[in-house]
Amino acid sequence: MARIVMKFGGTSVADLPRIHNVARHVKREVDAGHEVAVVVSAMSGKTNELVAWVQGMPKATGANSPFYDAREYDAVVASGEQVTSGLLAIALQSMGIHARSWQGWQIPIRTDNAHGAARIADIDGSFLIKRFGEGQVAVIAGFQGIAPDNRIATLGRGGSDTSAVAIAAAVKADRCDIYTDVDGVYTTDPRIEPKARRLPKVSFEEMLEMASLGAKVLQVRSVELAMVHKVRTFVRSSFEDPDAPGMGDLLNPPGTLICDEDEIVEQQVVTGIAYARDEAQVSLRRVADRPGVAAGIFGPLAEANINVDMIVQNISEDGKFTDMTFTVPTGDLDKARVVLDKVKQTVGFDVIQSEAGMSKVSVIGIGMRSHAGVAATAFKALSEKGINIRAITTSEIKISILIDSAYTELAVRTLHSVYGLDKQ
Amino acid sequence: MARIVMKFGGTSVADLPRIHNVARHVKREVDAGHEVAVVVSAMSGKTNELVAWVQGMPKATGANSPFYDAREYDAVVASGEQVTSGLLAIALQSMGIHARSWQGWQIPIRTDNAHGAARIADIDGSFLIKRFGEGQVAVIAGFQGIAPDNRIATLGRGGSDTSAVAIAAAVKADRCDIYTDVDGVYTTDPRIEPKARRLPKVSFEEMLEMASLGAKVLQVRSVELAMVHKVRTFVRSSFEDPDAPGMGDLLNPPGTLICDEDEIVEQQVVTGIAYARDEAQVSLRRVADRPGVAAGIFGPLAEANINVDMIVQNISEDGKFTDMTFTVPTGDLDKARVVLDKVKQTVGFDVIQSEAGMSKVSVIGIGMRSHAGVAATAFKALSEKGINIRAITTSEIKISILIDSAYTELAVRTLHSVYGLDKQ
Repeated sequence: MARIVMKFGGTSVADLPRIHNVARHVKREVDAGHEVAVVVSAMSGKTNELVAWVQGMPKATGANSPFYDAREYDAVVASGEQVTSGLLAIALQSMGIHARSWQGWQIPIRTDNAHGAARIADIDGSFLIKRFGEGQVAVIAGFQGIAPDNRIATLGRGGSDTSAVAIAAAVKADRCDIYTDVDGVYTTDPRIEPKARRLPKVSFEEMLEMASLGAKVLQVRSVELAMVHKVRTFVRSSFEDPDAPGMGDLLNPPGTLICDEDEIVEQQVVTGIAYARDEAQVSLRRVADRPGVAAGIFGPLAEANINVDMIVQNISEDGKFTDMTFTVPTGDLDKARVVLDKVKQTVGFDVIQSEAGMSKVSVIGIGMRSHAGVAATAFKALSEKGINIRAITTSEIKISILIDSAYTELAVRTLHSVYGLDKQ
Repeated sequence: MARIVMKFGGTSVADLPRIHNVARHVKREVDAGHEVAVVVSAMSGKTNELVAWVQGMPKATGANSPFYDAREYDAVVASGEQVTSGLLAIALQSMGIHARSWQGWQIPIRTDNAHGAARIADIDGSFLIKRFGEGQVAVIAGFQGIAPDNRIATLGRGGSDTSAVAIAAAVKADRCDIYTDVDGVYTTDPRIEPKARRLPKVSFEEMLEMASLGAKVLQVRSVELAMVHKVRTFVRSSFEDPDAPGMGDLLNPPGTLICDEDEIVEQQVVTGIAYARDEAQVSLRRVADRPGVAAGIFGPLAEANINVDMIVQNISEDGKFTDMTFTVPTGDLDKARVVLDKVKQTVGFDVIQSEAGMSKVSVIGIGMRSHAGVAATAFKALSEKGINIRAITTSEIKISILIDSAYTELAVRTLHSVYGLDKQ
């Protein structure tokens, strides 16, 4: 007998037949004698609809923030998961399973007061463990908890993954299964490279890089949480037949296990190729080379909620001026230029050059730490295809390369091949 | 300064522009210096959608009840009001009004454990009175509270009216305004009789009869509650210009006041004509005339959730057998026949005759108590139009007449005219 937290995303609960199908996945694990808790997202499209309603309201007068009252946003948007949790509980009951829906305020799942993007502060697992003891399948509304002000707080988009992992940690689950519309984590996007392979295992660190680099399988925060609490997290598909052979395999079900790197015996040098489109490159020329300059530039950008990604700063030749290049999402480029124009005088730089239409392609692999020459291989391969590299950043386990968007697919396929990731 | 509870129904909050319009109504009262709390329904159509989802789920196996798990029904269906309360709070904030949404479990609005059709057990008004003290407009999700099992409980369809009146009673409001898509209570349905007049005042007793007889302006339970707690309840339209002259009149705004009969100085003999279609008549012949027979018939019907309305039993000629006639909703007729077939032998009666396609037309007026001949006037007027009377029941303040549905409009117009209710 194992203890399993199962999480189903928006496409998995998009309508009544799919919710019924989800119930069959749950029934399989219950029938196998496991203790099961379930976390659900809202029906796909529903959260967007609710957000649009909130945003359709006139903005608060006199408010400096571009956001609507976050407490009311939370009250409205959290309703989507309330609906699916109730519907899934009913579907499970119809199969003779003792099931009950629970919302964050009932368990409670305590969050901080950061409405709209709250963090889970504490989940006392005893409530759910008591449900296990009663033979009950708790169906929990994802994406939300209750803040110290006694109001519903949501965790930010994609937060149901985080709910599931946090709950798995709180009840010390043997496994946290994230059911989604893909059947695992791939070496790269199969829509770009049909030779992409599903990875049986990925380390938390690698998954973190992949999640934040555009492989939209898991929310970044959920991976961080899984890593901290060592929650064995499984990415698998809800669209497969719930009763197909092997689906109920406790140790080796179809999908990708996100786990501690110690569990991955044969580590690959490169595990996967991720990419992110819609990047815009911003270059500042003749930036004064003195302490505090970076803070003077990136502080105001952060305050304007602009997510700066790659940052490249050259060592200045003369000790007085340097160039600085970074990327922002294309949608934020105009806003970024306004912010930069404002600080231009005080910080001290000359020209702002910017260009949209960039993509970031990244090579990820925990084995990189112990293998030299990984980056050189990438540069050589891209160069042979005539792909111009705009900027490079590296970390211990990844290399990110900024290129013209038109070459995205070619670059992904080239790198996928050169590191031997193509299907045998 | 007065204390006002404002309630807005589903058509009044059907979309964002209407919610914004509702906010203008609230602003008018706030600007006049009143203490205001607001109760909202779900967007029109939304509750039906949620109920359909619940009903679309396979039924619980082994359950005798035709209903779905009422606790899960409640969790799902209550989400509609959660959404509109949040959206209205945002709309109010955009007008510079200090507003905040509240759900039943936060205040709390305590109910009994009858999930799906709960009754309000207790509202401690101090929470809302504290909000008044802070200058806050509390926007409350109608139709729901929290049951002793710490789960959301809904009050049954139309329950938001009941929420509003109960809240008005708890905070000792000077007035409870029920905003809807009509501008008050009329002498009869204006779609049938264009000469129908809006009534300035209706007594609680009369309104109770009108509400239960098919004039769908207010939920019956809300009127009962208003009567018990003497809540001055105003029925008015949310579709009028919120800032039109007289809309903010504290004592005499446009609409219909439901109040104690003492407040109605000049009582009319007949206040209004109500009607209900889709009635079916059931007649049992040669019913054994002995004690317990009525219980033997109507007990099983009640257990099958069949709402029996008019009951007519003749005094038996021979002391052995009698005839019994009653009405049920047409939709329940088949179910009623099945129940009656089952008890036929044990209770003892011969033939079951039934006929659908009936309407019940009722004459209502508190002045009837002190005026003779009201019923005779109705019978004569209908007879002159050749309308056959199938059954008659009377109470202290109403006369109900069962007729063939085809004559509904003619009967309503005839009675409206004969009692002098036509517009001057």
